Order: sequence, then structure tokens, then C-alpha cells
Amino acid sequence: MPVGTQASIKALDPHTVSALGFRILLCNTYHLLLRPGTEIIKKAGGLHKFMNFPWLILTDSGGFQVFSLSSFNKITKEGIIFRSYLDGSEIFLNPEGAILAQCELGSDIMMVLDTCIPYPCDFEKTRELTNLTHHWAERCLESYLSISKPKGVLFGIVQGGMYEDLRSFSARYVSSLPFPGYAIGGLSVGEPSEIRIKMIECAVEHLPEEKPRYLMGVGTPLDIVEAVMQGVDMFDCVLPTRNARRGTLFTSQGYVNIRNSRYKDDFSPLDPACACYTCRNFTKAYLRHLFQAKELLAYTLLTLHNLYYYAKLMERVRLAIYLDSLELIYEELTKLYQKTAEEVEE
Amino acid sequence: MPVGTQASIKALDPHTVSALGFRILLCNTYHLLLRPGTEIIKKAGGLHKFMNFPWLILTDSGGFQVFSLSSFNKITKEGIIFRSYLDGSEIFLNPEGAILAQCELGSDIMMVLDTCIPYPCDFEKTRELTNLTHHWAERCLESYLSISKPKGVLFGIVQGGMYEDLRSFSARYVSSLPFPGYAIGGLSVGEPSEIRIKMIECAVEHLPEEKPRYLMGVGTPLDIVEAVMQGVDMFDCVLPTRNARRGTLFTSQGYVNIRNSRYKDDFSPLDPACACYTCRNFTKAYLRHLFQAKELLAYTLLTLHNLYYYAKLMERVRLAIYLDSLELIYEELTKLYQKTAEEVEE
Repeated sequence: MPVGTQASIKALDPHTVSALGFRILLCNTYHLLLRPGTEIIKKAGGLHKFMNFPWLILTDSGGFQVFSLSSFNKITKEGIIFRSYLDGSEIFLNPEGAILAQCELGSDIMMVLDTCIPYPCDFEKTRELTNLTHHWAERCLESYLSISKPKGVLFGIVQGGMYEDLRSFSARYVSSLPFPGYAIGGLSVGEPSEIRIKMIECAVEHLPEEKPRYLMGVGTPLDIVEAVMQGVDMFDCVLPTRNARRGTLFTSQGYVNIRNSRYKDDFSPLDPACACYTCRNFTKAYLRHLFQAKELLAYTLLTLHNLYYYAKLMERVRLAIYLDSLELIYEELTKLYQKTAEEVEE
Repeated sequence: MPVGTQASIKALDPHTVSALGFRILLCNTYHLLLRPGTEIIKKAGGLHKFMNFPWLILTDSGGFQVFSLSSFNKITKEGIIFRSYLDGSEIFLNPEGAILAQCELGSDIMMVLDTCIPYPCDFEKTRELTNLTHHWAERCLESYLSISKPKGVLFGIVQGGMYEDLRSFSARYVSSLPFPGYAIGGLSVGEPSEIRIKMIECAVEHLPEEKPRYLMGVGTPLDIVEAVMQGVDMFDCVLPTRNARRGTLFTSQGYVNIRNSRYKDDFSPLDPACACYTCRNFTKAYLRHLFQAKELLAYTLLTLHNLYYYAKLMERVRLAIYLDSLELIYEELTKLYQKTAEEVEE
């Protein structure tokens, strides 16, 4: 799922997102709650109509951003009090409010309100926040079940920080609740990848195979393939879009940093093996010029390329599941991205 | 002609510009000289290939921007010395250099190097700078004629400041040189519209009817229709694209300022009478949200609309020339834009 934080995949129009093959994207309840407000989107007939995206939309609950973007936040058993990053006003978000907001958005897949556990975090605090997430999950579910004819479904979220037993416990607890899908939250928050992989393992072990498993906020092409091999089914990540706006591209040759002066008279495509609109129509030299000149077209063309890359990667991954050849993709990507890692740093 | 200063119509990809019906655009030699450098564009096979725009490209000579964008510039009979606004380096531009740069760009219509006369400016200074423009025009022409098989054509530019006799003199002088088209420069620099109209009149009177007359840097829909009625054939202006990025739209109802809070829950199109992609697919409420949230998609969708508006206006204008009904368009636009002028200010 590409990320359309404020009801827009940054720099791309929704028809282009559809044309790239995406049939689901993620929007952030937190941002939309503050601007333009969920009541306006409800009046518009829901997010799909508002932003003119006809396919599926998953919304997060807002919990993560409350922690990462609000200068002030206070957490109680009842919910979270935080200040709007736009005007400083005080806002209260509780599990019932998170469900209501997502219903107003007309979300197809809603997420329970969860707590964001910082990294690092001690065991006791992690246990406490994980238990609170469980309590809120139950309240979200109850609130959801009280809706007559809900449009979307509601997913649970596993927390547990970086502690194996808490991850396992959380996965067992959350999977005991009748959600149609389960997410693994609180990862990619700065922990080493070995820990992330271990935590995914602890969670996946207890999540039913017949229901979708969704790893939130992950990740690089390699992270994704790795997690698929562990049994994860769904992903969202800002990486393809955000990296594009910073000039870092994913290609069949590994990373390309378009700011690099070596491309100033390189009239070959960004990725000779890529069939996207950008690679078919423009050269590295032109893309570099646009980027250096801060032309808005740079962000559009580079975002388009990175999302195309991810769409094609996921196509390959789906096929490889059937062919039982994920290992090959994993090895290919490991070599490729290790070899070109310095491009990103330059 | 929409303006693609740095080899890109800001926020639009060149295929969209083509799809809007534009078959010619303007690029700025000054900007491209400094970044990425005309030699790189030459290596790319010219501007058309570089930016992937298959139709015509007109390039200005760089004179105007040397004056408006350079903190330091010194003008002699030989040419202009100025500092790059990018790195402060000292650059010398003379008539021969301006032609060379435009040849390297692969321009279809090149412009002679001219001087930019400030407003206001006394008679003596205006006369001096106008004579220098004439001298440079001759050198540009000589330089151009020495090229074997030039790709593009070269237009002359009438100056003369805001003095009727100098305008007439300049128009007579420049039109005595065998250019295939003539531009009227140095207007829309802050002077009242009555003066601009008078200056156009003085120039047009002496410019041959069978060759294109090009009014540089003008203007609003009304300015354009007015100038067409005076006998002008070609225009370039940043107004549709720049206004779009500032949230000011041209519509069949007059100005719309998309930032206005009255649009926050207005789910009608920007312009109900408009058939552009933006008006067919998005509401004012969504466009306002994108704009307020500084989403890049706002600039793309609003630019697209304004350029569509200008393209359709020029279609109407061309038809009205044959039907002898320009006066009707003029009256319609006068009422419309006077009535909605406050929208822009809000």
C-alpha cells in the first residue's frame, strides 16, 4: 500500500496510482482528523469520493502520529489527549472516537487505536502499553460491532515492543479476538533488523494463516521480501514515495541517487530495465536537472518510478510464493542493495 | 505559450501540456544557461529531446532575467556582465553569445538580446537603451545569418520604454531588419494599462501585418484579448501557471481563490462549465484541502486547470477573429473579472 497521508499520494494524481496497479492505499486518520476534518470528508461521501480513488482504502487509527507528531500528549486508560500540530488545540482521542473517525472516512479497512511504544523502552513500560493496546482493541471491537451495517472491516494490532515473550503474548491475545485480519505494529522504529525479524517471527507464529497479516510501516524491498518469507501478507510504507522526493530511487541496478553529479550528462533512463512512464520518457540528466532545480515535475516523475518499482516487486513476490522461489529474490536484492548502498549516502 | 522556465512547465509533465493542446512553449535561456548549462542540453540533442516536448519551443535571449534576477549587472556596448544567482560567478553575455546559447538549446524561435528598461525611466536613458537594443539586434541578426542551416528562426524585439515616439521609432527601426517575426518587449513591468495599450498601439502600427507580432510577458485573459484586438498574434505569460500555484484560478465565473474558507465543504467542481481533468474529477473542497495541506498534487491539478482555461480562451479568440466578435469576449471578460477581483485579494 502506498501512503496517502493527507488523502493524496504525494505528487501523484489518483488515476496514476490506479494505473500503476495499486488497488489499495493507506490514509492517516490523524492528519485527516486535524485537516480538513473527518466531518468534511463524511459530507463529501467518504474518502474515496473526496480524493477520487475508486479502490480500497485502509486507514490507521491515528495512534502512531499522536505520539510521533504531537509535542504534547498524555495517555490514560481512557484515551489520549494531544495537541494539534496545526493550531495547538487540545484533542482527545479514545478507541470509540478512532472508530467513529474511520467510519466517517468510509474506510475499507480500519485499524484499532493502539499505543506507540518507543525504542528502546523497558519491559515494565512495554508491558503496560501493550496491555493498554489490548484493552483499547476490545473497546474498538465493541464499538465497531455496535455499528449497524459497517462499510469496512476492523483489524487488530499486535504490540509487545522488542520483547519476545510480550510479542508472543500480544499476538496470542489479539488473535483471540475475532478480527478478520491482524497487524504487527510498533516495528521499524529504529531497532536493528535482527530484532525486527525476531519480533515478526514471535508475532506471526500466533497469527492464523487464513487471515491477512499486515506488517505496519515496513519497509525496503529487502525488508518486505524477508517478511513475506516469514508469512506476512500486507505492507504499507512511505519509503518509495519519500525516497523519491529525496532523490533516492529503487532500480534493477540497485539504488540510484539522482542528485549525483555523475548523472549530469547521462542520457540513459533511470533504469534501463524499467517500463514505467518516467523511464520510457526521460533521461537521468533531465531528472537530475529537474531535481536540482527543485522543479515539481521531479517529485512526480521520481515518485511514479519508485511506486512502479514497488508494484512490480510485489507482482514478482506474489508469483514467487507460488513458485516457491522467494529465496532467489531475497538473494538478488541483498546483493543489489548492499552493493549500491553508498549511492544513498552521497 | 505557457512558460517552462527551467525546461519544465512547473508541476506538469510535457505529455499533459501537449494533451492540453499547446504546440509551443517558452523556455528561458538565462535559467538554462546557468543550470544545467546549454552545453548539456546540446549534448542531450537539444531542449525538445531533453525535456521530451515534441512541438515548438521559443526561447528568450536571457536579457530580461539578467536585469530582474541578477544582483549585479553591468551593461556596455559589448554586452552584459552579470553574476549567476546560483553561485555568484561572473558571466558575460553578448548578442553573439545569446544566439549561440539559443542554437545550443535547439530553439525553434530565438529572440535577439535586448535590454530591459525599468519603469519609470527618463527619456534619455530610454533612448540610449533602445538604441543599444537596436545595435544588438543587428549583431544578433548578423550572427544568426552566419550559421549554416540554422534550425530555428530569429525574432526582433521592439523596445522604446513608455515613450510614444521612441516606441514608434523602435518599431520602425526593428521592422526594417529582415526578421520573420517581431516582438514587443519591455511592457507589463508595472506601468498602468492605459500606457501599455498606447505603447502596443505605437508599435503595432509599424509592424508588418503579414509577420507574427508577439507581445512578451502579457497577460491576463483581458490583456490578451485587448492586445489581439490591437493586432497582436502571440503571447507568453507565467500568469496561468504562477497564479495556479498561488491558488488563484481563472474560471467561467471569474476568479476563484481556492484558499477561501467558503470552499471547505463545497463539493462542486472548480468550474462547472470546464471540461478539464481537474474539474471533471475533483471538487473545490478537495482542491482547497490539497492546497491548504501544501500537497504537491494541488499545484499539478490547479496548473492543469488554468492552462486548460487559457488554451480554450485562445481557441475562442481565434474563432472570434474570423467571426469579428472579439468585442463580445472583451466585454464578457471585463464584467467577469471586475466582479470577482476581490476573490484574488482575500
